Amino acid sequence: MSNPVLVEVLRGALVESRHRGAVAVVDADGGTTFTLGDIETPVYPRSAVKALQALPLIESGAAERFGFGDEELALACASHGGEPGHVATAQRMLAATGLDEAALQCGAPWPSHSASARELARAGQEPSALHNNCSGKHAGFVCTACALAVDYRDYISPAHRVQREVKAVIENLCGLRLADEHCGIDGCSAPNWALPLNNLALAFARFGSGHTLSSQRAKAAARLRAACAAKPWHVAGTGRFCTEMMQHFGSRVFVKTGAEGVYCAALPEQGLGIALKCDDGAGRAAELIMAAMITRFLPEADRSWLGRFLQPRLRNWNGTAVGGLRPTEVLSR
Amino acid sequence: MSNPVLVEVLRGALVESRHRGAVAVVDADGGTTFTLGDIETPVYPRSAVKALQALPLIESGAAERFGFGDEELALACASHGGEPGHVATAQRMLAATGLDEAALQCGAPWPSHSASARELARAGQEPSALHNNCSGKHAGFVCTACALAVDYRDYISPAHRVQREVKAVIENLCGLRLADEHCGIDGCSAPNWALPLNNLALAFARFGSGHTLSSQRAKAAARLRAACAAKPWHVAGTGRFCTEMMQHFGSRVFVKTGAEGVYCAALPEQGLGIALKCDDGAGRAAELIMAAMITRFLPEADRSWLGRFLQPRLRNWNGTAVGGLRPTEVLSR
Repeated sequence: MSNPVLVEVLRGALVESRHRGAVAVVDADGGTTFTLGDIETPVYPRSAVKALQALPLIESGAAERFGFGDEELALACASHGGEPGHVATAQRMLAATGLDEAALQCGAPWPSHSASARELARAGQEPSALHNNCSGKHAGFVCTACALAVDYRDYISPAHRVQREVKAVIENLCGLRLADEHCGIDGCSAPNWALPLNNLALAFARFGSGHTLSSQRAKAAARLRAACAAKPWHVAGTGRFCTEMMQHFGSRVFVKTGAEGVYCAALPEQGLGIALKCDDGAGRAAELIMAAMITRFLPEADRSWLGRFLQPRLRNWNGTAVGGLRPTEVLSR
Repeated sequence: MSNPVLVEVLRGALVESRHRGAVAVVDADGGTTFTLGDIETPVYPRSAVKALQALPLIESGAAERFGFGDEELALACASHGGEPGHVATAQRMLAATGLDEAALQCGAPWPSHSASARELARAGQEPSALHNNCSGKHAGFVCTACALAVDYRDYISPAHRVQREVKAVIENLCGLRLADEHCGIDGCSAPNWALPLNNLALAFARFGSGHTLSSQRAKAAARLRAACAAKPWHVAGTGRFCTEMMQHFGSRVFVKTGAEGVYCAALPEQGLGIALKCDDGAGRAAELIMAAMITRFLPEADRSWLGRFLQPRLRNWNGTAVGGLRPTEVLSR
C-alpha cells in the first residue's frame, strides 16, 4: 500500500533523498488514462483548487459587475509571491467593491517572493493581507459575497453562502459529495475539502473541457483558463513553475500548485485532467512529477523544452553544481 | 526495503502527509541499541557532522592559539541563522588570524533567520559570507590552516591539509574508511562524505563519551561539547530545535541538525550516539524523530518537557490550529 518512489535527489554519485507519491490522469467522463500509487484515499487539494473555488466569482456575476479582466481573474486563481503587481491587483479587486485589505481574513505573512519581502523591509514597511499568497482568492470570495448581496464578513466559514457555492461547484466537477468530516482549514483559513486524486483529476478534466458541465459553468471555466493563459505571472510569479508552464504553453496547459506537494493540471487538447500528491508534501518533487506528466501527454514536439524541468540541477551558494533531481523509472517509463 | 513511516502530518481529521526514515542508536563500542529502517546505506551527514569537522580546530592548537572561548567553538559547530551575534562571532574568529570574510569560500546567502534577513534589508545592506549558516565552520577551517602553517586559500578542496585532517578524524570516530566516490559537495562547498547511519551514530557515541579515542581527541571532543552546552544559541539560534534542546539539557544532550533531514546526537550519560535521516529530507520530521529518540533514552523525569516536540501543532497565518505532527506507532512504542 506504499506509494512508489517517483523522484530521487542526487548529490555527487549518490541518491541523497527520495520522494514518493501518487498520480491520477483522467478524462472528463471519468475514464482513467494513467495512475501511479493510491488514488482513492482523500487528500487535501489545498491551493491546487483555487481555479475551482473561483468559479462562483464568474457565475455569480461578480466578475462582470466589477469589471474584472484577465489580471483580476488570474489572481483569483493564484498562489502569488506577494510581488508588487500581485498586491496592486488584489487591492484593485477590493477597491471595486468599495473595500480594502481590512476585508480579507487570510492573515498577513511576509511575501513568499523573497526579494519582494526584502524590498518591503527595505522600505520600512510591514506586510498586509494583500501580500498573502491567497489574497486574490480571498478578494474573489469577498467580491462574490457582494454580488450575491450577502454579508461578506464571515466569508471563510464553511456555512457561509460563498463557501457553500464553492463546495457545490467542486462536488459537481469532481462527481463526489464532499464529506464534512473531510473538511480541513487551509493556511489562509478558508475551508478545504479532501477528496481522492481520482476525483480531483476528473474535476480538472471537466474544468479543461467543459464536458458534462452546464453551459454557464463551462463558459466560466473557459473564462478563468483564458485569464490564466493570458496573465500567467498573476497565477504565481517570477520564476515560478506554474507561471513558466503557462507562459510557454498558453491555453494548452492549465497548471496549479497546492501546499504539501499537490499539483493539478488540465490539458484541454487531450481532454485530460491530472492530479498528484507527493506523500511527504515536497513541492520540488511535485513540480518534477507534474513536468513528467505534461511530457507524457503532450505531443513529442513539446518535450524538449520540458527537459530541464525533468532533470533540474542543484547548485550551492557558490553556484557549484552539487547534484540534481531526476524521475525514477516508474515515473519516466 | 522501504523505510517505515515515522511521522504523520495531520490537518483536520485526516493525515495530510507522511515522512519515512531510518534511525540508528549505538554505543561507543559499536553495540546497536535501537534501529529503525535501513542503517547500512551511506547517507550524507551534511551539517550534522560539524562538531566532528571542528575537532582539528582544537587538536591543531588553533583554538588555543587564537584564544577562542565557548562562543567561537560553538559557532564552529553551528548551522546558525545569520543573526547579528552569529555574524559578529564569525568576524571575531577571522580577525584573530588577521583575516576577514574575504577568506571564506562558503558563499553569501541571506540569513536563514528571516527577521535578521529583513533587518539587514531594512538597513540597506547585502549579506556577506559571514551570514552563511556555515560561516563558523569555515572560519574554523581557515584558523586551522593558519595554525598548521599551510595556505588557507584552497581550504575547501578535499586534497587540502585541513580536509584531510577532517576526513581522518571522522574515519577514526565512525570506524570506517570514507570512500572517495562517496564524497559530495555540501551547500557551503566543503566536502561531505556519505556514511551509514550505523557508523554515524557510533561516531557520536564516541564524541559524547571519548571512549576508544586518544586522550587528546577525547579532550577536544569534551571541549566542543562543553562549548555548545554553554552557548547553545551560537549552535543554531533563536527558536531553533538544537538551541532549545541544549539550552534545556545542557551537557546531557549534544544535538545537531544537517540538511536533507539528518540529525545526530550524543547522550553522554547513556553512552549513546544517535543518527537519523528522513528519506525525503524534511527537517520538520527529522526534529520530531530526534525528539522521540531523546525521549526514549533519557530518564522518565525528563520526558514531560519533550512532549511539545513530539506533538507539535500547526497554526495558520491567523494563528488558528489547523493540525499537527505526530510520531507513528513504530516510532513511539
